[in-house]
Amino acid sequence: MIALLTDFGTADYFVGSVKGVILSINSEATVVDITHEVPAQDIETGAFTLFAAHAAFPPSTIFVAVVDPGVGSKRRPIIVSRNGQFFVGPDNGLFSYLYDTGSHQTINITNEEYFRHPVSPTFHGRDVFAPVAAHLSKGLDATVFGPIVTDEVRLPIALPTKLKEHVWAAQIIHIDRFGNCVTNITRELLTVEKQKTAKLKVKEKTITSFRSFFVEEDTKEKLFAVWGSAGFLEIAALNRSAAKKLKVKRGDLVRLELSER
Amino acid sequence: MIALLTDFGTADYFVGSVKGVILSINSEATVVDITHEVPAQDIETGAFTLFAAHAAFPPSTIFVAVVDPGVGSKRRPIIVSRNGQFFVGPDNGLFSYLYDTGSHQTINITNEEYFRHPVSPTFHGRDVFAPVAAHLSKGLDATVFGPIVTDEVRLPIALPTKLKEHVWAAQIIHIDRFGNCVTNITRELLTVEKQKTAKLKVKEKTITSFRSFFVEEDTKEKLFAVWGSAGFLEIAALNRSAAKKLKVKRGDLVRLELSER
Amino acid sequence: MIALLTDFGTADYFVGSVKGVILSINSEATVVDITHEVPAQDIETGAFTLFAAHAAFPPSTIFVAVVDPGVGSKRRPIIVSRNGQFFVGPDNGLFSYLYDTGSHQTINITNEEYFRHPVSPTFHGRDVFAPVAAHLSKGLDATVFGPIVTDEVRLPIALPTKLKEHVWAAQIIHIDRFGNCVTNITRELLTVEKQKTAKLKVKEKTITSFRSFFVEEDTKEKLFAVWGSAGFLEIAALNRSAAKKLKVKRGDLVRLELSER
Repeated sequence: MIALLTDFGTADYFVGSVKGVILSINSEATVVDITHEVPAQDIETGAFTLFAAHAAFPPSTIFVAVVDPGVGSKRRPIIVSRNGQFFVGPDNGLFSYLYDTGSHQTINITNEEYFRHPVSPTFHGRDVFAPVAAHLSKGLDATVFGPIVTDEVRLPIALPTKLKEHVWAAQIIHIDRFGNCVTNITRELLTVEKQKTAKLKVKEKTITSFRSFFVEEDTKEKLFAVWGSAGFLEIAALNRSAAKKLKVKRGDLVRLELSER
Repeated sequence: MIALLTDFGTADYFVGSVKGVILSINSEATVVDITHEVPAQDIETGAFTLFAAHAAFPPSTIFVAVVDPGVGSKRRPIIVSRNGQFFVGPDNGLFSYLYDTGSHQTINITNEEYFRHPVSPTFHGRDVFAPVAAHLSKGLDATVFGPIVTDEVRLPIALPTKLKEHVWAAQIIHIDRFGNCVTNITRELLTVEKQKTAKLKVKEKTITSFRSFFVEEDTKEKLFAVWGSAGFLEIAALNRSAAKKLKVKRGDLVRLELSER
Repeated sequence: MIALLTDFGTADYFVGSVKGVILSINSEATVVDITHEVPAQDIETGAFTLFAAHAAFPPSTIFVAVVDPGVGSKRRPIIVSRNGQFFVGPDNGLFSYLYDTGSHQTINITNEEYFRHPVSPTFHGRDVFAPVAAHLSKGLDATVFGPIVTDEVRLPIALPTKLKEHVWAAQIIHIDRFGNCVTNITRELLTVEKQKTAKLKVKEKTITSFRSFFVEEDTKEKLFAVWGSAGFLEIAALNRSAAKKLKVKRGDLVRLELSER
């Protein structure tokens, strides 16, 4: 199985070409779209979305992830091997979330034998990443494609910063289609502090309601926090966009305060 | 075959996760997208679109339909079995059109054995509906998932109302990408009255032209009615948006008047 | 393999219906989306996108291409057979780029035996093109569907016009998601003139930089020309939309001037 995540949009011939190349090399491959609507050249959103989706896929899945503003420059094409899955794409930070959450091995793709020739300088998705993934899906060992490297480019993934005892500076790392605001607060952080009760402060609003479900009788109109499906704490509002209500955007700060229960 | 219809949009990781879960359970499944662009939480549009699409699919198709504003609340997850096809999703009216157009059986999904654990309170598409559909596609009997129920939630699907002899109050139930306005007038209604000639009145405009084809020499600039591909009477305009020309939206009234031929 | 390109959008039931019909007839078919976001009824964009994508697909691919403002009129449904691939759709110019770039054979689809009945006058994608493609994918000979014709409808595909020695009037034929402006200048044209150096004039701006890669140190802020992945010369800007910078739209003129190197 080969799963695709790009910023190509769906209006152009780009996605079709990638699929055509994969199926030309391995007609047995199952090609699945994760999304092609990552905002153009937005590596951070691509990295988050890939991370949030990858765990639902089977162990042997090969991901082709292309958000690649540096296409044609000297940025390296790579394969990241991790927990039986493979991630093929540019070495620009797109795989950052994966590096910290499991042991992995990274291959710098240098063997041009498996590229589609002539390689377009502007479309490595079709001419480099797609054919490499397709050959990988036929059982080739990842080391055939190039040498192991360990100095991958990493995004400065924001982790909550401890400001003082029981107070953390967290951040909104993603806003989804429904306006839910995904923070970088993980269960691990709040679990350690589970004897405490928590509140969030965002843009002068304070959120004290931590919900298990989206719909409860008494949450109407109110903002609340909930463990999101990607594993992070999210700020939501019942049947409304929390992002609009809070007037927040990605990167905005969230202050987490814990106190005795 | 498993066909997906959701309001998840295509920009986020939601759709990819659902596909990953299905293919993790049944790697032989063919997963097909109907649409993920149902307007967020718009059950009516989801119900219409599912109904309009389902008949083109093979008898054994399993549909996963998720437009689910009540996710995480007490609304029931269900499986509707009908004419050899299965429909898996929330019991909130999304399957309303199907109930009235063929005999069916409904199962309330209660057996958590087939869920993906831990079940996210906010993403039953991935953790409940996708795995249930995938297990169903492997040949499990629907009754394995829970008890039969008969009190499904139904939308008040608008049927044309008879105002007086030969006059009906109908309604626009959908506007498509091309601006065609789908009404709730069915062939059955007009067939009964086939000795008559018909006219439609919408927002002070009167439509007397009933066309078999979109393009005919003398329809330029004019509004006309045509039997749409979903089985309902549609109001269209040649190479233009009838909805824009009429300034109508979903729910607006259409008056149908029949007279002697 | 059956690849789909339409202007149906992805919000409605149209695409799902086409897939359902194909898989009802040939459950072994691999159905791949190229795009469904061709602007509504924009045959030119459909023709370009299909042409740009087709070469990446395997030889036996069957393309269903539906941008069909004349649906239901007397325009002919056709199958174009070319280099082992098949193209099924309306005879309205959608296949124009293909006619000039390889020998081909065109069949006028007249045999209604393979249609889905009753044929909706407004949805030949589902009722004519999808079932014909599905039957074709099962190994039927194209001539089963109707007689050979040679008078296909062709768009006036713009080729650069020679204005005088070393000066050509070219045109922007497509603008992609990233704002790159695809011209109709081919490698063949510039190869003939390879002893020369070239410049492009667009809307009072002159472009003298011809780049191999999108990212080079000294291209910041500047417009440059690059061989695009569809085989045409494109005007691009580093990490910006060249189309916005130039304020151009499809159809705008580009003057190509060659001079002694």
